[in-house]
Amino acid sequence: MFDETTTIASVSGPILPVVAAALVDGMGRVCLQQRPANKSWGGLWEFPGGKIERGESPEAALIRELHEELAITVDQAALEPAGFATESLPGRHLLLLLYVVRDWTGTPVPLEADDLIWCEPAAMAARPMPPADVPLVRQLRAYLADSVTSVTPGDSGTV
Amino acid sequence: MFDETTTIASVSGPILPVVAAALVDGMGRVCLQQRPANKSWGGLWEFPGGKIERGESPEAALIRELHEELAITVDQAALEPAGFATESLPGRHLLLLLYVVRDWTGTPVPLEADDLIWCEPAAMAARPMPPADVPLVRQLRAYLADSVTSVTPGDSGTV
Repeated sequence: MFDETTTIASVSGPILPVVAAALVDGMGRVCLQQRPANKSWGGLWEFPGGKIERGESPEAALIRELHEELAITVDQAALEPAGFATESLPGRHLLLLLYVVRDWTGTPVPLEADDLIWCEPAAMAARPMPPADVPLVRQLRAYLADSVTSVTPGDSGTV
Repeated sequence: MFDETTTIASVSGPILPVVAAALVDGMGRVCLQQRPANKSWGGLWEFPGGKIERGESPEAALIRELHEELAITVDQAALEPAGFATESLPGRHLLLLLYVVRDWTGTPVPLEADDLIWCEPAAMAARPMPPADVPLVRQLRAYLADSVTSVTPGDSGTV
């Protein structure tokens, strides 16, 4: 699938990676934030997160964004990859990476959003969302449903 | 989470995106290919796929790779995002995107791999895999388990 000898020269194509988080509380509810009314998709509900800056890992970017947007502190070990979506825009390819986060320090407050809600996974689909967030909802529901009954992530076999 | 006015200047960081496919046959089995013995991770089993070339969308890259590696033709509409993983390597961040594919034209043959197998999802974890593939197995199992019982992807609410 890939070789570790691969050079980086081939990857500067117009892919715009964006990271987002589904914070999940002790009751299994997911945090969504409401976009400010004066922005694109104003009033719609989205997963918190943002762009990966130059040189950042996806995880470092999400930890930074969650601190900037919600005033919480998250450890990299608490980030669980849960799903992704792509969207072709003029001249670039948006790539959204969604992580589940179940553990953080601090109380989330909407520093940049208009509001926060905590939403049952089954009720997320009823919230109006920006188009890029919509396909993540089904993958997130699948991931959370599996988490309840699945064996631990460490069971995958290696030599 | 993002604005469509975002410029692309901020995204040329060392993120190496790689796409991979879980081909799923009519009996729910997943195709894995065996890496050639003389390559890194030789003999281990992986999801077919490869690098995104400059300017390609993730989907176009995967369609190309599946034709090159397995001699099959896949339509973009048949690519379902199912999970992702990241791995930090020296100087860059590997980003693996896994799509489920249930529909293709042609019979998969291992043009670049040593062998192909069709594997029950529950049995995948017992196959030795390159480290980057391992975390994808659990997300894939969750995605496939949900597909059996879930409502259709189109049910997510938009305004």
